Amino acid sequence: MEFKKYTLDNGLTIIGEINPAAKSSAVGFFVKTGSRDETKEISGVSHFLEHMIFKGTEKLSTIQVNEAFDKTGAQFNAFTSEEITVFYAAILPEYLLDITSLWIELMNPALRDDDFDIEKNVIKEEIAMYKDQPDFVVTETCRNLYFGKHPCGNSVLGSVKSIENLSAGQMRAYFSERYAPNNRMLAVAGNFEWDKICQLAVQSCSAWQKKETSRDTSDYPGAKKKKFLKKSRLARQHICLMTKAVPAQDNSRFAAHLLCSIIGDSTGSRFFWEIVDKALAEIATMHFGAMDGTGIFQTYIQCSPENSSKVMDVVNNIFTDVSEKGITEDELVKAKNKTLSALVIKNELPMGRLIDLGLNWTYLNQYRTISDDIDSIKAVTKDEILNLVKRLSLQDFTIVYLGPG
Amino acid sequence: MEFKKYTLDNGLTIIGEINPAAKSSAVGFFVKTGSRDETKEISGVSHFLEHMIFKGTEKLSTIQVNEAFDKTGAQFNAFTSEEITVFYAAILPEYLLDITSLWIELMNPALRDDDFDIEKNVIKEEIAMYKDQPDFVVTETCRNLYFGKHPCGNSVLGSVKSIENLSAGQMRAYFSERYAPNNRMLAVAGNFEWDKICQLAVQSCSAWQKKETSRDTSDYPGAKKKKFLKKSRLARQHICLMTKAVPAQDNSRFAAHLLCSIIGDSTGSRFFWEIVDKALAEIATMHFGAMDGTGIFQTYIQCSPENSSKVMDVVNNIFTDVSEKGITEDELVKAKNKTLSALVIKNELPMGRLIDLGLNWTYLNQYRTISDDIDSIKAVTKDEILNLVKRLSLQDFTIVYLGPG
Repeated sequence: MEFKKYTLDNGLTIIGEINPAAKSSAVGFFVKTGSRDETKEISGVSHFLEHMIFKGTEKLSTIQVNEAFDKTGAQFNAFTSEEITVFYAAILPEYLLDITSLWIELMNPALRDDDFDIEKNVIKEEIAMYKDQPDFVVTETCRNLYFGKHPCGNSVLGSVKSIENLSAGQMRAYFSERYAPNNRMLAVAGNFEWDKICQLAVQSCSAWQKKETSRDTSDYPGAKKKKFLKKSRLARQHICLMTKAVPAQDNSRFAAHLLCSIIGDSTGSRFFWEIVDKALAEIATMHFGAMDGTGIFQTYIQCSPENSSKVMDVVNNIFTDVSEKGITEDELVKAKNKTLSALVIKNELPMGRLIDLGLNWTYLNQYRTISDDIDSIKAVTKDEILNLVKRLSLQDFTIVYLGPG
Repeated sequence: MEFKKYTLDNGLTIIGEINPAAKSSAVGFFVKTGSRDETKEISGVSHFLEHMIFKGTEKLSTIQVNEAFDKTGAQFNAFTSEEITVFYAAILPEYLLDITSLWIELMNPALRDDDFDIEKNVIKEEIAMYKDQPDFVVTETCRNLYFGKHPCGNSVLGSVKSIENLSAGQMRAYFSERYAPNNRMLAVAGNFEWDKICQLAVQSCSAWQKKETSRDTSDYPGAKKKKFLKKSRLARQHICLMTKAVPAQDNSRFAAHLLCSIIGDSTGSRFFWEIVDKALAEIATMHFGAMDGTGIFQTYIQCSPENSSKVMDVVNNIFTDVSEKGITEDELVKAKNKTLSALVIKNELPMGRLIDLGLNWTYLNQYRTISDDIDSIKAVTKDEILNLVKRLSLQDFTIVYLGPG
């Protein structure tokens, strides 16, 4: 494995980790933008823009974009979160330059008015579809309630209203600022020739114009709010809890991840044995959401409305117990093994590696080998987790209930 | 990459492909049994038995099984199809022997009456859940109608009735025949020491008793039937088409796969451009189902009830056109690139490799390297595909419609 890095004059960074033993390659653009960088007026524009990237450029029609992907045989996709938009492809090494050229071309979308109008309906349908998913609704509502006016509570999809009111001109203005070369990064992993990638990027991206971009990365102190949402047609109760965790840049992030595995992994965790295995709920999980400058612990529960308060008693007891006594050595060993095995297996494939490579660079401005992460996970102690739990306050959560009553 | 093979006196075969460059290992048991090996009386027993494997052995309770998996950090699961039951795990190399021991232990399940009774409810809930999924219902109905009395039409899940009537004794009898060592195989891929795996298997599996097992692998001539299923609560029309293809053992299987990619891949195919892109249907895909001694082409369409006949006109036109004129060189090149890239990326990870390794051995009794498969795909010509289409008759399909009317 060899790490390479080059930055163009306009601020576009290219990073690559070469693995000559790999049979495939992966390439992607990481754009440091998402719903937290939106104002209320343009809520949902980042995600909408992600769709529009595939609608073509001055040179390529939508059909030609489809055909160009098809020719290479790439497995490709994109996603938008609260703080990042990623375009990625896994591919045979012989087509890597073709697909990289294609991504570079697409990074200057035409954003045509007629494509914009058609895609608007697709986005509205996507919003409607998600509104039907109670786990999504309860999580989004909880996030919004928890973060209040902090931009990390912004909705990724936006609302039907904000999308309806959005103009192509507003999207173009957003694009021109947020997709500036100094705010995006080209990353490559797997089997490839660094010089050729660099040459291609220099040739094709040097004309991109640098822009001032910034983001509010202030930490958020946390909130303790409560909300009930009644939906009579639902059979189950959906519960989301959110509480303060550490930012993506914090060295305790590995401890935070292990803590969630111990409390709320889908198998073998405290939630599993005390809630799911006892048939109090079908689902009870806890995740660590590491963000730029802040972070959350997020718990999601699905159970019968009758079990709702019993489940919450157990959750509160688990939070209190962990906060007072910490975790056991046995729990820590299991959580480390699960986390290490998932990490190694994910990073074994260039596509999985690309994501970690890109996210580490985006959040930390740092290259970390897989071994660096393995070592950090192995080094976490029971005391470190206890200190973390004492520093944060698991019991002071914001909670949203969504169910029949 | 080095291939190894060893067969115990009782017929248990152990195969392994060693990749010293891999960071992880994968191990699994491939049991040559599924719904096609069931009689009507025990319909669903293979899938139910797959669940029961995780319920413990004479030595291990259900909880201890869970804890044993947890300790290793393995990513594990199992699946049952019409003709195979597979138990697999991806893991860090240092835990490979532990997880292999665990699988070996689980391969002799206790099949306790009380566990059986509890799990029966889980299976019935799973059946109920699938009954809510129109794509599943239409496909299962079509498969059943197409195959008639041929066992490949048997339902994997069984019915609520067959599961209700099933006894633990019947399951034990089925287990003792179908899980005989000569009907299952232990496969390992990735980074591991062959001698240690072999030694473990010899020590722990030699006492397993060989049994007579057989399977009806007669080819099926195909059928041309039609059925309408009315479900007023559905908004969309779900359509499934099934027609004869080649068996898993046939050398034309690569051509059959490429044909499906050209006609019915989810992007860039004829279905995509002529049906999905034209907004006649949301989904229109075609798959090749390669089976032991037989095979099917399966098309699935989801559209508005009004578009149903228009979509079927287009489908028929595409089938006729391909049958008369074959495909273009451009289509073949694209399909090959997509297929090769998916193949290489899947096989790059020990877990993905394990599945192909195991299935090739199960169906072909043959070790095939990734390069063998790449070469076979590259060698397919336009003429070979045209011959295949002429030999099979795409237009003579069995069809099931499921929708509001």
